[in-house]
Amino acid sequence: MNRFEDNNWCEKMRIHLDFNNVMVDFIGDKEGIKQSQFENLSEKIKHCANQLAVKRDNGKMDWRNLPYNQPIDEILDYVKQMKDDIESFVLLGIGGSALGPIALQQAINHPYYNELPREKRNYPKFYVADNVDPERLVYLFDVIDIDKTLFNVVSKSGNTSETMSQFMIIKDMLEKRLGKEHAKKHIVCTTDSENGNLIKIAKLEGYKTFYIPSGVGGRFSQLTPVGLLAAAFCAINIKELLAGAAFMDKICTSDPENNIAVKFAVINYLAMQSGKNISVMMPYADSLKFISDWYAQLWAESLGKAVDNENRTVNVGQTPVKALGVTDQHSQVQLYNEGPYDKIITFIRVENYRKTISVPKIFSDMPSLSFLGGITHNQLIQVEQEATEFALSKLNRMNMTIVLPQVNEFVLGQLFYMLEVATAFAGELLNINAFNQPGVEEAKNATYAMFGKPGYEDKKNELDNAPKKNPNYYL
Amino acid sequence: MNRFEDNNWCEKMRIHLDFNNVMVDFIGDKEGIKQSQFENLSEKIKHCANQLAVKRDNGKMDWRNLPYNQPIDEILDYVKQMKDDIESFVLLGIGGSALGPIALQQAINHPYYNELPREKRNYPKFYVADNVDPERLVYLFDVIDIDKTLFNVVSKSGNTSETMSQFMIIKDMLEKRLGKEHAKKHIVCTTDSENGNLIKIAKLEGYKTFYIPSGVGGRFSQLTPVGLLAAAFCAINIKELLAGAAFMDKICTSDPENNIAVKFAVINYLAMQSGKNISVMMPYADSLKFISDWYAQLWAESLGKAVDNENRTVNVGQTPVKALGVTDQHSQVQLYNEGPYDKIITFIRVENYRKTISVPKIFSDMPSLSFLGGITHNQLIQVEQEATEFALSKLNRMNMTIVLPQVNEFVLGQLFYMLEVATAFAGELLNINAFNQPGVEEAKNATYAMFGKPGYEDKKNELDNAPKKNPNYYL
Repeated sequence: MNRFEDNNWCEKMRIHLDFNNVMVDFIGDKEGIKQSQFENLSEKIKHCANQLAVKRDNGKMDWRNLPYNQPIDEILDYVKQMKDDIESFVLLGIGGSALGPIALQQAINHPYYNELPREKRNYPKFYVADNVDPERLVYLFDVIDIDKTLFNVVSKSGNTSETMSQFMIIKDMLEKRLGKEHAKKHIVCTTDSENGNLIKIAKLEGYKTFYIPSGVGGRFSQLTPVGLLAAAFCAINIKELLAGAAFMDKICTSDPENNIAVKFAVINYLAMQSGKNISVMMPYADSLKFISDWYAQLWAESLGKAVDNENRTVNVGQTPVKALGVTDQHSQVQLYNEGPYDKIITFIRVENYRKTISVPKIFSDMPSLSFLGGITHNQLIQVEQEATEFALSKLNRMNMTIVLPQVNEFVLGQLFYMLEVATAFAGELLNINAFNQPGVEEAKNATYAMFGKPGYEDKKNELDNAPKKNPNYYL
Repeated sequence: MNRFEDNNWCEKMRIHLDFNNVMVDFIGDKEGIKQSQFENLSEKIKHCANQLAVKRDNGKMDWRNLPYNQPIDEILDYVKQMKDDIESFVLLGIGGSALGPIALQQAINHPYYNELPREKRNYPKFYVADNVDPERLVYLFDVIDIDKTLFNVVSKSGNTSETMSQFMIIKDMLEKRLGKEHAKKHIVCTTDSENGNLIKIAKLEGYKTFYIPSGVGGRFSQLTPVGLLAAAFCAINIKELLAGAAFMDKICTSDPENNIAVKFAVINYLAMQSGKNISVMMPYADSLKFISDWYAQLWAESLGKAVDNENRTVNVGQTPVKALGVTDQHSQVQLYNEGPYDKIITFIRVENYRKTISVPKIFSDMPSLSFLGGITHNQLIQVEQEATEFALSKLNRMNMTIVLPQVNEFVLGQLFYMLEVATAFAGELLNINAFNQPGVEEAKNATYAMFGKPGYEDKKNELDNAPKKNPNYYL
């Protein structure tokens, strides 16, 4: 039996939200939320929950069903077949195609994974090329042997300039080195099953392909093969990951108006209403550092919107800020404690770390050090989180804590899914479309125009006629 | 002759600030800065420049003199003597003791530095332990051999719990493994020359020691042995780094009221005055990603203050946000374009990358891809930066660009120094103390109290009497 089939274990692994320190009882009248504010929102919350349920029923939120319908066996078979022949797995993707895979790998695996000898990993090294920085891509070839590398091209539209140009470079390189027939075994595509250039090319060339369901947008795609294939190639248990997501789905569905995801959304909504336009995500675990990056995309791109559903100008959106405890206590917490009352801080706390290390009892004659003797770093990191929470609350700074029993695939599955549901719910509360990203089109079109792509002549004209820069504004 | 002794080369390597897109001519009346606003501030700017000059003359800004008085030869001799005997250099430090060293290493060296074979590095592998996450420290021992590792303990006060507890663990481990006499060759301390436990211990044990000048605070210490020793152990040219800083000092000193640092400060000050409480730092280069982390500490901890110099409550401070181009175009730019008008974006643009890679001319029958054929990633990343700048400006979003001719030590020296001067200047404009961090004491004291450190009994009492958490506020 898998451990996630044991209900007791699942309950023990359930993630929680401690929101004491957003409440008026803990941070005072001026900054705190009153219980009555929740009650006043109750009708709106019901309405939003209902709207989302209808959307799901009407097939407009396919990402909600990902825990149940993904090609797990096909992925595992493919990994089994390939993994021993390759030394490196390189994901070519950007944004939603990269952030989830990175976050999961960093959370679950050894922090120095690629530096371990193969026998300690058993699985290939893992790299993500998520930028078009020429230096980084050139340097990547110093540490991988392309003959022994599998490249996973991830783009739903098949039009992502960054990813597709990387793919073009790699395809050409592989074919020149290995010939067309051998080259194709080094490429696997994750894309839409019907639309776009990547599926067209994949069919033509005979590449192995996995599909992103057409209704699932990039930032909600971590539980599709976008995240699952990369994870499986790093020995991550994707069955357990999806089981965790399903477990959270059950929590959110059985109590649609008062679950952890909805509460997270409602608190942030109330925070925004009171001028807290910054949302800090601060895990106290190095392994979770990149969860903040994944969350930053999800929250920013979903909720940062110019217009609401009635097309009225609203210009809403909290700015996500990535922080790491305890490290950023020595960088950001001065500002959080003393700066403007413009933020809400979400800690992620880990109850049980996977390793323990103790401080020896030395320097007993130095009181500033001797109190450290005999404690563990496990205690130190947790106590510092509590102390930071205490200081923030004493200064009436809104903060809450997502509590993880430990870091494993089941817990991560819950966390991804919970934050996705929370984001969608926050979108409903704000009455905006959380699933589009119209604001990135302008720069995309300008890029096309600058490269002379056909069809962008008007934009080219606009660029040519933009005001010329003033040399006085250059120092 | 070193290249930085050639004035022509230095001028070619000079960094610049393009602030067209904060001005009213480019982003309109409502969001843009009018030339008259600069003029109206002119007296205040003169006053601030004068104040800072007086402080420097009175020995209250020792960090301004670091380009001229650091023990370069002693550092280089020590590195030369040690480097071939060790496989790894591990820095134990947090906040200002870690962020600069990480930023510089990532900027200058190969992005997969530790994965390269020794003969390609010639210098030891480089690690920074800047958290008390028990997992990360335990896992570190899987990839280093402590017999062949030099540990650099960095703490000015010698009281930093995180760093000192790591040091206690490592000291004990080394002595058990190698004996006291051999162990001490594996430890080098960077600390105050007189005060604190670390210098006391170092003298007692006979550790090699480098000093942080007593007037230089953590976040202004990158150009002391804090940054220099780690850099030199990674083959980074610290002479050139300091020469770059000296070059920037000359720029700032010869034109104290109208140089790049002052302009950066003034623009941010005006942005804050108009409600832009978020400062995004967005380099378009993977190598500069961690410059944003270093800047985030400098800006947040220096400017996030509850009271001004007259002890009036002000609660000021922009929240720094770390972004990376082009990657975060697929994550954050939707929000920047469409969300609240609450931020100013600073791009860092690199004119010449150290590597070039071209996209082959394939897929000529697919217009969405064929326009990519024949271009370089160097062009793509730069054009995308320009396109993002264009889109933001069209939407009246404040943005400016720090222009780096290329990424090298001389340029980085300028950049570090410029942002330090800018931060100090912004502190003067805000009439706050940019050099303290009173807001971190509360959590530190709470931590001490929770561990029962003598002298913190009152705080312990306060904690014990704090309101108990409400189980209803836990989901």
